[in-house]
Amino acid sequence: MYNPEMRPLGEARSAIREAFEYANKRKQEIGEENVYDFSIGNPSVPAPACVREEVERLFREVPPEKLHGYTSAAGAYPVRAAVANYIESAFGVPMSAEEVYMTCGASSSLTITFRAILQKGEEVILLTPYFPEYEVFVRSAGGVPVAVATAPDFHLDLEAIGRAIGERTRAIIVNSPNNPTGAVYSEGEMRALGALLKEKSERFGSPILLIADEPYRELCYIAPPVYPMCVYENTVVLYSFSKSLSLAGERIGYIAVSPHCTEKEALFACIAGAGRALGYVCAPATYQYAVAACLGKVSDLEAYRSNRDLFYGELTRIGYHCIVPEGAFYLFVQALEEDAVAFAARAQGYELLVVPSDSFGAKGYVRISYCVSRETIERSIPAFEKLYRAYRG
Amino acid sequence: MYNPEMRPLGEARSAIREAFEYANKRKQEIGEENVYDFSIGNPSVPAPACVREEVERLFREVPPEKLHGYTSAAGAYPVRAAVANYIESAFGVPMSAEEVYMTCGASSSLTITFRAILQKGEEVILLTPYFPEYEVFVRSAGGVPVAVATAPDFHLDLEAIGRAIGERTRAIIVNSPNNPTGAVYSEGEMRALGALLKEKSERFGSPILLIADEPYRELCYIAPPVYPMCVYENTVVLYSFSKSLSLAGERIGYIAVSPHCTEKEALFACIAGAGRALGYVCAPATYQYAVAACLGKVSDLEAYRSNRDLFYGELTRIGYHCIVPEGAFYLFVQALEEDAVAFAARAQGYELLVVPSDSFGAKGYVRISYCVSRETIERSIPAFEKLYRAYRG
Repeated sequence: MYNPEMRPLGEARSAIREAFEYANKRKQEIGEENVYDFSIGNPSVPAPACVREEVERLFREVPPEKLHGYTSAAGAYPVRAAVANYIESAFGVPMSAEEVYMTCGASSSLTITFRAILQKGEEVILLTPYFPEYEVFVRSAGGVPVAVATAPDFHLDLEAIGRAIGERTRAIIVNSPNNPTGAVYSEGEMRALGALLKEKSERFGSPILLIADEPYRELCYIAPPVYPMCVYENTVVLYSFSKSLSLAGERIGYIAVSPHCTEKEALFACIAGAGRALGYVCAPATYQYAVAACLGKVSDLEAYRSNRDLFYGELTRIGYHCIVPEGAFYLFVQALEEDAVAFAARAQGYELLVVPSDSFGAKGYVRISYCVSRETIERSIPAFEKLYRAYRG
Repeated sequence: MYNPEMRPLGEARSAIREAFEYANKRKQEIGEENVYDFSIGNPSVPAPACVREEVERLFREVPPEKLHGYTSAAGAYPVRAAVANYIESAFGVPMSAEEVYMTCGASSSLTITFRAILQKGEEVILLTPYFPEYEVFVRSAGGVPVAVATAPDFHLDLEAIGRAIGERTRAIIVNSPNNPTGAVYSEGEMRALGALLKEKSERFGSPILLIADEPYRELCYIAPPVYPMCVYENTVVLYSFSKSLSLAGERIGYIAVSPHCTEKEALFACIAGAGRALGYVCAPATYQYAVAACLGKVSDLEAYRSNRDLFYGELTRIGYHCIVPEGAFYLFVQALEEDAVAFAARAQGYELLVVPSDSFGAKGYVRISYCVSRETIERSIPAFEKLYRAYRG
């Protein structure tokens, strides 16, 4: 009676949200301290003081009817200019305000970008394992997701990517630092990817867009990743302040269109049109102004590094297998049986909430978010030991 | 190269946004006080004190990592429960939190609802003149907008609506108090509409959804409109705090699904699925909590009534024709020539920014927003007089 494609999306929820909602329910039943919720990427460290200070200043100094009024659809111009200046000074790319479109966070940046570029049946390459909503968002815009496996160390498999590109390929999504694996692609890898995309774009006579989804840029435990616009012309960077400023629920981010994109004005117009068609009138005003005053600042991200060291050390000591994450705040751990869904369900019996890898387009792993308190990790270790013994005696 | 349907949407902007952006540019050129900007529905009265007090309290009392974290996709449960309680106590409809879905404002409520219910080619009835984005949003979801004229006094023409309903009709949008005409439909009209929809739903064997778009509910200068759920079972109310709390830029509102809807759980699941597919992860967290504490409170809406009285009186004194608005904050004035676009362009020569009615699906009028300072109205009157004399000597 209603739209039959939407109902399962609403009923099933994502595997991540499923675990998150279960964890919330379970915490009410047996107490927060008895549930080890590693389901969702909800930042555990507070937003830096600059956020509160700026919001308080805005409420004090800006008349409310100005502060809370509509901004232009692409964002308040001074905010867009501040973001452009920041990108230029941090990464050396000559950006202008006209190339920045403020959004309601990374997911809206993705849906807007896909709607802007895709016609029915056109393809977007996703690298497995990938953030599950990528697939939902590509399909929602009428596109076809094409999954390409990464290498065994979760880095780029350029040959496989090259084989997957065809005349219907419009874009590839690259997410580095990566959710769920924690991989950070090296400058060499990214340059090689840029060269491949350039070659294939020329061969097929149409630019393939590199969509760099970068909410974890600052969560990097090795040398920071190269800025994608520096390795390939047809690039859009989707940035979110959800993780760097711990503002996940406030829904604030941006799309930056490389000044070197082919027909960049047309691309920007399509982005603006897609934002409009999807009902995004403007990004939330107060937080637009607030993040403009906090560019380059971050939450205490060292807490995540220390969580990673502790958690990785303990899980591998017990016997779990996992590649050491170079960035983001997830461990991607091999399940102890073939069926990761069954493994996650069994973990749930020990109050361990982890997300099976199946909806990430990969089998046999679980994602464990370590954006939690250190104490939660410490107290969960005996449960992980019990779970391990349940499988390996 | 990109999506050709999106480019014109991004390049053209809406007629409202076009006038708004022009006004902003013009203000920079000749000074804010010399431009009479009646283009957009950006509230001119400040948010009530409760908004600031609640935001300050949240920043003071809630740890930032909780305050700014993701909420559930449908909204924080206590917020949804508060909205449900409010609807129940204000309008006597037995609502529960499970029937409330928090959104990023009215436009997102519309795109989510259309995506939730429409399959390709299905029809939605729009009553002319209508908010122009309705048409964009229906098409964006694959639907077909069917325009039905209202009566000469801009009230419902039930015969015309009845003739337009067919087996492909999925919904009708009703916006009362109305943008752009200011009409407020009477309880009798709404009950008759409910009876018509019930009869047609039975005849075609499938419920026709009444989509009540209600951002102006509290901006009513006559008896308040009946709550639409009280006159027809298959109703969703789309509410926004943009106007009632002067929070247009913060993007916060909700979809309330009537407890009497046919297969209401399926409808709610479709809404949740559509929100997900469009990239709405959750409504902005701080403002979810803030509006929950301000339910039933409003900005100083009396300022709009006094603006209406002044502006309507002056314009009709000069000789302009306009029906007295019963609600909202717009005057819908007859253009002084057949071509409203040409009339609006000529008004622009007197620094009067008004929106021609063509994109509202009606010819020969302009919309004049009076959510401005009283002084702006007063100072604009000589310009309206000059404009009138330019046409009528």
